[in-house]
Amino acid sequence: MSTVSQLKRILIGKSLPTSAHHEQRLSNAEGLAVLSSDALSSVAYATQEILLVLITAGTAALSRSLAIAFAIVLLLTVVVLSYQQTIRAYPNGGGAYTVSKENLGLYPSLIAAASLLVDYVLTVTVSISAGIDALTSAVPAFRGISVGLCLVCIFLIMLANLRGVKESGRIFMIPTYAFVISIFFLVAAGLFQQATGHASPIVSASTTASSVKPLTIFLLLRAFSAGCTALTGVEAISNGVLAFKPPEWRNARTTMLYMGILLGTMFLGITYLAHIYQVLPSEEETVISILGHQILDQSPLSWFYYVIQTATLFILLLAANTSYADFPRLSSLLAQDSFMPRQFSYLGERLVFSNGIIALSFLAALLIIVFKGDTTAIIPLYAVGVFTSFTLSQAGMVVHWFKEQTTGWRTSAIINGLGAIATTIVLSVIVITKFLLGAWLVVVTIPILVSIFLGIRRHYRYVANRLSIQEFAPRGHLPRPKGSTATHPAVVIIGQLNRGTVEALDYARSIGDEIVAVHVDTGFTNRERLQQRWQDLESDIPLVILDSPYRAVVNPIVDFVQEFEELHPGVLSTVIIPTFVTQTWWEGLLHNQTAFFLRSALREKRCRVITTVRYYL
Amino acid sequence: MSTVSQLKRILIGKSLPTSAHHEQRLSNAEGLAVLSSDALSSVAYATQEILLVLITAGTAALSRSLAIAFAIVLLLTVVVLSYQQTIRAYPNGGGAYTVSKENLGLYPSLIAAASLLVDYVLTVTVSISAGIDALTSAVPAFRGISVGLCLVCIFLIMLANLRGVKESGRIFMIPTYAFVISIFFLVAAGLFQQATGHASPIVSASTTASSVKPLTIFLLLRAFSAGCTALTGVEAISNGVLAFKPPEWRNARTTMLYMGILLGTMFLGITYLAHIYQVLPSEEETVISILGHQILDQSPLSWFYYVIQTATLFILLLAANTSYADFPRLSSLLAQDSFMPRQFSYLGERLVFSNGIIALSFLAALLIIVFKGDTTAIIPLYAVGVFTSFTLSQAGMVVHWFKEQTTGWRTSAIINGLGAIATTIVLSVIVITKFLLGAWLVVVTIPILVSIFLGIRRHYRYVANRLSIQEFAPRGHLPRPKGSTATHPAVVIIGQLNRGTVEALDYARSIGDEIVAVHVDTGFTNRERLQQRWQDLESDIPLVILDSPYRAVVNPIVDFVQEFEELHPGVLSTVIIPTFVTQTWWEGLLHNQTAFFLRSALREKRCRVITTVRYYL
Repeated sequence: MSTVSQLKRILIGKSLPTSAHHEQRLSNAEGLAVLSSDALSSVAYATQEILLVLITAGTAALSRSLAIAFAIVLLLTVVVLSYQQTIRAYPNGGGAYTVSKENLGLYPSLIAAASLLVDYVLTVTVSISAGIDALTSAVPAFRGISVGLCLVCIFLIMLANLRGVKESGRIFMIPTYAFVISIFFLVAAGLFQQATGHASPIVSASTTASSVKPLTIFLLLRAFSAGCTALTGVEAISNGVLAFKPPEWRNARTTMLYMGILLGTMFLGITYLAHIYQVLPSEEETVISILGHQILDQSPLSWFYYVIQTATLFILLLAANTSYADFPRLSSLLAQDSFMPRQFSYLGERLVFSNGIIALSFLAALLIIVFKGDTTAIIPLYAVGVFTSFTLSQAGMVVHWFKEQTTGWRTSAIINGLGAIATTIVLSVIVITKFLLGAWLVVVTIPILVSIFLGIRRHYRYVANRLSIQEFAPRGHLPRPKGSTATHPAVVIIGQLNRGTVEALDYARSIGDEIVAVHVDTGFTNRERLQQRWQDLESDIPLVILDSPYRAVVNPIVDFVQEFEELHPGVLSTVIIPTFVTQTWWEGLLHNQTAFFLRSALREKRCRVITTVRYYL
Repeated sequence: MSTVSQLKRILIGKSLPTSAHHEQRLSNAEGLAVLSSDALSSVAYATQEILLVLITAGTAALSRSLAIAFAIVLLLTVVVLSYQQTIRAYPNGGGAYTVSKENLGLYPSLIAAASLLVDYVLTVTVSISAGIDALTSAVPAFRGISVGLCLVCIFLIMLANLRGVKESGRIFMIPTYAFVISIFFLVAAGLFQQATGHASPIVSASTTASSVKPLTIFLLLRAFSAGCTALTGVEAISNGVLAFKPPEWRNARTTMLYMGILLGTMFLGITYLAHIYQVLPSEEETVISILGHQILDQSPLSWFYYVIQTATLFILLLAANTSYADFPRLSSLLAQDSFMPRQFSYLGERLVFSNGIIALSFLAALLIIVFKGDTTAIIPLYAVGVFTSFTLSQAGMVVHWFKEQTTGWRTSAIINGLGAIATTIVLSVIVITKFLLGAWLVVVTIPILVSIFLGIRRHYRYVANRLSIQEFAPRGHLPRPKGSTATHPAVVIIGQLNRGTVEALDYARSIGDEIVAVHVDTGFTNRERLQQRWQDLESDIPLVILDSPYRAVVNPIVDFVQEFEELHPGVLSTVIIPTFVTQTWWEGLLHNQTAFFLRSALREKRCRVITTVRYYL
């Protein structure tokens, strides 16, 4: 125990008192870094996922990526505008669960909650595996151990969060802005090469010869769906309005706008570069890595390639980290509303929701192992949860505006309505085009989660009901049963007559008014001697010796106790089990564990009061 | 639980009452089959182990096998004669442990016991792996899975013994006599071929070219040691005298003589055949299999080869099975004498010493896995234990005769003395020649086992001493403490105020005369409401609310209980833990397991009386 505690102390740090809780407000630049890493980091994989779908229809189809990117940026605009209305309406933070609970009712809110939980797990999985992709693109030697690297990352992020990462804007700014600057630099360098006529398309063995699918509308929609992962995380700022300096909602809105502009520009820029450099997407190397090599390798800035890859890795780890704030927070909200086990609402030693952090890490690690850390394999699962919560959140906002009718509600309602319609359509497209690729898993999981939520609440309500003391009378005024006959019966289990059992019998005398001792003879008891010693020492307590021809010890006792309890209806019978405790656990192995098995069996037979009287050697 | 019970019922059978114990007497022919399979079966590997040592000095050295075999048969004669004296002196069965305990004292008897336990485990390991060798010699396809086959055999033998194999002489006669007849037939056929001039030596690629060791005395002694495994199990009849029909000791003596003659003849016969057919020993095929092919393949009786191999397999399984009677029996004797954990002395549901059977299977399986089922690798460990117990047993007999001085004691003493001297010499030879090959493992294990035996007895004696009630006065006459102030203090742990805790408080009132309730506030308790309801219902019991700024629940309670106990020295304070029990285990996951952790922590802090008051939902 001591070693475990020490290890825990080193890894997690010492306990913090509840009073150490405090809030820290963020400037807009910090808020952007802390809350947008999830959204911005999707630039690292969104273009690639579009190209990987298109390439199945041959290299010529890749040129469609630009149009798809424009469509996604349009969708992004709608979603950002829509969430700006949410920020105004919910200055205390309006997550999809809260908004749909208040405006749409129980079931939509639980669907939103389930979608979000799934989404948070997938954010960790996708971000970590994409981050490791960035690493293995730069250092191919690590490719063989990518699953292991993913798991190590999850473990380290879990530890950091169990310690309690303060959402310290300063530190978080470094990877976020490094990534933004790197991408802008890469785009600028590429555009400059194009303008000066130096942009040389990547020459590669033509893969068009291999069997290609026709470029159907379905395929284009699938490419669009794949690209929609760029939108994951844009809602984060609307959840964290209170983290900004006053006036909170204005600052949050401004920050959200900047985030949308940065995300849209970077995404378009990378997609455009991939287009002019005719990047062939590959499972081995990321699009950004291919572009980085192509644009920078011949220049004096070739070292900057490693800056880009490092920044990409770190912003993706940061994106994973945001789920470590969101998942435990939502779990604790759900636990407080009795939809999840109460343990999720407890603050751990370091003032974080430890159980949520551990559950998230476990689930993400499981997915990494199941999908072998393959980003492209996990992506089809990703967008379903995100767009479900988008849709429910915007729909909830429309209801909100019709209920509240504050100034300007009509404009807001129209914007949110447009957002809801757009995200509903996209959600349908995603579910249809990616259903067989893995989206079905999420479509199946969400209703299962919802029914688990409801089952858990049903259980807690049942328990509360059964334990209710509404109509109870004051207890102190009740007549005390002490003194009347057989109001406090007790059974003492006797193995041998020794110091431990003698003391247990003394204890029984002090608490009981009808005591019986019971011994099981498995055929090896010296009855005469036992009876003799009993008469010498304990003659005031009747001793019952049970025969056990099959040598079982536990069952005869349990049967006897049950009969004894039936003879004393309406009062609690105490079962007293004397036991002696050895100094070390291995000394315990030299003795029977009858007491242990007896306790389990009595519990199974619904025995109410079991008293262990220990004798320490 | 139910599924496990059902599976157990199917595999092991239903419980048997103690009264089902009964004895069955064996005829001499049955007794030979039941008690000699271990000894006779060693013919299957003893010759081979001699040859495998000699071959390291080149093929020419193989001719020395005959002389070695004669020396071993001489030793066998001495040992058999010596044990016949034991049978006369101990008509109730004289195992090495019993004989040395009575005549040589504590330490020699424990050394004998340790040697025997080691020997029994090795008998299972060697017999099973040699049996599987016989199988893979006939069916080479099984060679790759021989370790798996060994483990399956151990598992099946364990199951059969857990069910309780009646030592039914009839069934056991089949493999034993089939083996004896097969070997005699093989020897006869071989001798006939030689007599008729058809015995054609096996022609094989000469291996003499490879680096050979010189044929030193040491190597010859090592070959002799290897062959001494033929003597394992010859003592079995002397342990089981009571299994014979009256006059038991005479019948046992006669049977022992026949056993010695059969064993000696078969061993000499096989060794002679190996000599005239110039068998080259190999790790892939057993000597008996090579001889079988050579002698029978060209004849119309070639199918008889498979009879030999099958009979060999089954007698070896039977030999392993004898350890399943001996190991548990000796363990239970040691457990009754407090040298092994008491659990080894308990008869299981099927009237067998289940714990001994399971322990033996586990150890044998472990050795099979460690040594990869390689018979030749395990053999060097084997003979040490056997000859240690031989030596101690015969030496004990010499002392016995000098003490008893019954008729003919001088002759018996001389025979036993010769036996003791011979086995002592052989034991030294075995230890010296095989020390580095693995015998050291046994030489190290035996003293370790002896010190464990002594440690266990020390522990049991300490416990008995601490629990002794020698000087206790009759308890019923002691003044009952009930009624005086604070003679029965109780602490009730309160999470919330609900039906379960209210009932626990009622229970506390019925047994205690100074009650205090304690609640831990981790910062989330509505204190005002709790205090209010407490005043309404439980105003007669003081409620202590402990602050827990670090949100720990268990530690504040444990500290409080310790202080409370210190305030009431000399009496037992009862700690009452109310707990509610859900209908299924997974519903239990939705609640805290505080009660569980609290009980462990209180136990660690040496809290004496813990009462659980359960409320069933």
